[in-house]
Amino acid sequence: MAKGKDMRKEGDKRFTDSEDDPLALDYIFHPRSVAVVGASPQLGFAGVGTSFLFAIQSMGFEGGLYPVNPKHQQILGLKCYASLVDIPGPVDHVIFSVPVKAVLDVVEDCVAKKVRSMQFFTAGFSETGEEEGVELERQVVQRARQAGIRVIGPNCIGIYCPSGKISFGPGSPRRPGPVAFLSQSGGNAADLLTTASPRGIRFSKMVSYGNAADLNESEFLEYLAEDPETKIISTYIEGVRDGRRFFRAIRRASARKPVIVLKGGRTESGNRAVLSHTASLAGSLAVFRALVRQVGAVEVNNLDELVDMLSVFCFFERPPAGRRVGVVGGGGGFSVYAADQVDEAGLKAPALSRRVQDELRRFTPVAGTSVRNPVDTMAILEPAKLADTLRIVASDEAVDVLLAHAGFGWGPGRVASAMGLDVDKLIAAVIDALVRVREAAKKPIAVVMHAPPLREAMEYSLSVQEHCARQRFPLFPNLSRAAKAIAKMVTWQEMREDLGR
Amino acid sequence: MAKGKDMRKEGDKRFTDSEDDPLALDYIFHPRSVAVVGASPQLGFAGVGTSFLFAIQSMGFEGGLYPVNPKHQQILGLKCYASLVDIPGPVDHVIFSVPVKAVLDVVEDCVAKKVRSMQFFTAGFSETGEEEGVELERQVVQRARQAGIRVIGPNCIGIYCPSGKISFGPGSPRRPGPVAFLSQSGGNAADLLTTASPRGIRFSKMVSYGNAADLNESEFLEYLAEDPETKIISTYIEGVRDGRRFFRAIRRASARKPVIVLKGGRTESGNRAVLSHTASLAGSLAVFRALVRQVGAVEVNNLDELVDMLSVFCFFERPPAGRRVGVVGGGGGFSVYAADQVDEAGLKAPALSRRVQDELRRFTPVAGTSVRNPVDTMAILEPAKLADTLRIVASDEAVDVLLAHAGFGWGPGRVASAMGLDVDKLIAAVIDALVRVREAAKKPIAVVMHAPPLREAMEYSLSVQEHCARQRFPLFPNLSRAAKAIAKMVTWQEMREDLGR
Repeated sequence: MAKGKDMRKEGDKRFTDSEDDPLALDYIFHPRSVAVVGASPQLGFAGVGTSFLFAIQSMGFEGGLYPVNPKHQQILGLKCYASLVDIPGPVDHVIFSVPVKAVLDVVEDCVAKKVRSMQFFTAGFSETGEEEGVELERQVVQRARQAGIRVIGPNCIGIYCPSGKISFGPGSPRRPGPVAFLSQSGGNAADLLTTASPRGIRFSKMVSYGNAADLNESEFLEYLAEDPETKIISTYIEGVRDGRRFFRAIRRASARKPVIVLKGGRTESGNRAVLSHTASLAGSLAVFRALVRQVGAVEVNNLDELVDMLSVFCFFERPPAGRRVGVVGGGGGFSVYAADQVDEAGLKAPALSRRVQDELRRFTPVAGTSVRNPVDTMAILEPAKLADTLRIVASDEAVDVLLAHAGFGWGPGRVASAMGLDVDKLIAAVIDALVRVREAAKKPIAVVMHAPPLREAMEYSLSVQEHCARQRFPLFPNLSRAAKAIAKMVTWQEMREDLGR
Repeated sequence: MAKGKDMRKEGDKRFTDSEDDPLALDYIFHPRSVAVVGASPQLGFAGVGTSFLFAIQSMGFEGGLYPVNPKHQQILGLKCYASLVDIPGPVDHVIFSVPVKAVLDVVEDCVAKKVRSMQFFTAGFSETGEEEGVELERQVVQRARQAGIRVIGPNCIGIYCPSGKISFGPGSPRRPGPVAFLSQSGGNAADLLTTASPRGIRFSKMVSYGNAADLNESEFLEYLAEDPETKIISTYIEGVRDGRRFFRAIRRASARKPVIVLKGGRTESGNRAVLSHTASLAGSLAVFRALVRQVGAVEVNNLDELVDMLSVFCFFERPPAGRRVGVVGGGGGFSVYAADQVDEAGLKAPALSRRVQDELRRFTPVAGTSVRNPVDTMAILEPAKLADTLRIVASDEAVDVLLAHAGFGWGPGRVASAMGLDVDKLIAAVIDALVRVREAAKKPIAVVMHAPPLREAMEYSLSVQEHCARQRFPLFPNLSRAAKAIAKMVTWQEMREDLGR
């Protein structure tokens, strides 16, 4: 890609000024018609092409959708064409799911058909480390540039875009949201979608861009920085193609929107894996980290942390005003744990004021509880009392953010069951109480639900998750993850202020 | 407890030489009869006494079991007595679930009845920080010592011991196992039991000992070091009552068995929470950590890490011979992540030997996979091929331990569903393959199953969990936790060697 800028000039105007007019790339996310070459009616890995068709169908795509495979007449109720050039209307976007040997012929068909973008699920290019694959990738990109066709991948699953009604995976949410995810790994993109969606996080765009032979992280970042559909940008990057352009892109993006960065290939073992995966050079971690810090982006270490950051950025109306957490939940051991995790994450659980402690003491029994902070209360079984507790804690000037936690072992789920309460109703009432407190206190509230790996506990945690997603509470499976995400958001806000944003 | 040693001499011989004859404490875990004072037929928190009765009944306890409450005739089908002294036969162990005001009267009944141990679910003692509670605790312990009665707690849930057929929680496993857990928090004990049991970890004894007013961490540790039922000791400790005795106890225990230590109250916020919880002084963390290291115990930072360590200590027949991990699973992004986590945990994922790579290449397609390490393979859908892959990787001399991982997003669960495979059968076949490889290779294997929070994924992960528990594989929800647990076990083994064990 060092030569990319010159080569682009060979193509049509779509290449010439992408850094100056990043939104010109928008057509990639909104194709008017899509063909999947190599679709076969068998589901599963052997017929991933059909998965793409099915995924796009299930998004409600209204443009032309064309399976291409000489061996079939019809796939998923769609007329199947022997070749791209047999399709009657125009084709904007082509997904390759063909054997690597067939690639160059299909590229010629794309050129003949005047398509605008090609996406390669097909792998076997530079990531193999073999001369042949490297050369094939070079040829594909060269031919595409001559013809003014942009390339996504190869070795990727491409794009999910609810507003464009396209997706890489069946069952993707049709409802859009504010988050973009730019991922060098298709697996990570699919995993984030299945992990984040049930927590209520919705996406504007996801791009799995694999080997980044043509379109790469910088060009997509430039686009996302301007994209009005995107409010929060997250990325999984293994290697950067053009360091200077990337620096400009991430600096501009971070100045406008929160940018969360997960770097793959941080270690010696990881670097080797990156080379096998997308043929990227992971580069110096120290330089990368310095760059991320300098521009005010947020670095995370794994996909779980990434989802956690998306939760707080999506659901907190604004970052907490400071690092002081009011912790409310049941259990002495859990309270100690909460306090330790809060401190270790760089937050504080300060003693509540005398006034607040006195107010809590009025209806909190002395035995087996604490009103200091963490507040160890059994009120979680009594939503009205819980609301009072949270309201009073939130009223303390020494509290910037609330953390409400519940476990399952001896916790509300099990106790409520034993007491014959309707747990779903209880959960709904607790979440309603949280909503009221949040509205009144104007302070962010995060929820922690710790569930052991038991069927019953999982059922409850799914119910809690559903309610939190609907009411826009960030939900975490343990206190440590909650504390880390909140701390990172506060740090991000402090950096912004330092950078004068 | 500084004065404890002298005071003990006032009691019967059970106190005089507990440090010299730790197993004398065994009667605590095997009472011949149990009374629960303050049991009420209402389930849930208001009637926790009844939960204790129910828990002990459901363990198959064969001794006398007596609810005590003047307001009732019968509870859970058991005759209910108005007072302890009305019970016809002897009573070994008494569980207090009475209001704090009633405590001293019931203690007098215990003395009259010549009981051997008292356990207080009742709270409202020194942990309140109120003069009254501190004084009450002092009086209870003094009276107990005069009468030769040992005290567990107050402010605790006491004991779970399958061989003694007693428990603190309904639904506790009746099958015993090698792990002891000594916990200053009842919530943590209950949580560990519900979290560890589904992973196949079984316990010899669990003790929640709360304020440690009489029996404390040192005496229990001395017991567990000698206890033939216990092979692995784990502890949650907020504060240590007698530093020198604790040092002797943990040193002796660690010389004989793996000892895993979770310290509650590591931070300023945590220390304050500890004071509210069990009135312990958390003390200097640096001193505590130095002590743990010096004796060769393993420190963990939360209950999840504690369960993870129990998994490897229970299921690895021996620690890995070194830090070199062979990683096998599906997905390029996951492979990069695995490699990074392995390295960051202090392990290595070295490149596999030429021979091994060639052998793998014979049946692994070039495109979309890697045979270097991590091995990125799609063989997880084909158990026979997966077994071959693992067997060949395990045969590499550069591999000390295997890590097999699977996700769900685009992973086997979803793909197998789409392909119409029977996922339960597939999981069983995969685990069988792992068993065969482990037997042949004589190298430990850990399993990672990453499931998003979707009902379908949770069903699969419960099935994987069940199979892993039955076949004794340590199972982790993500690669990071697996890598950390394995690394800590190797470090533990290295410390042992340094200490000449």
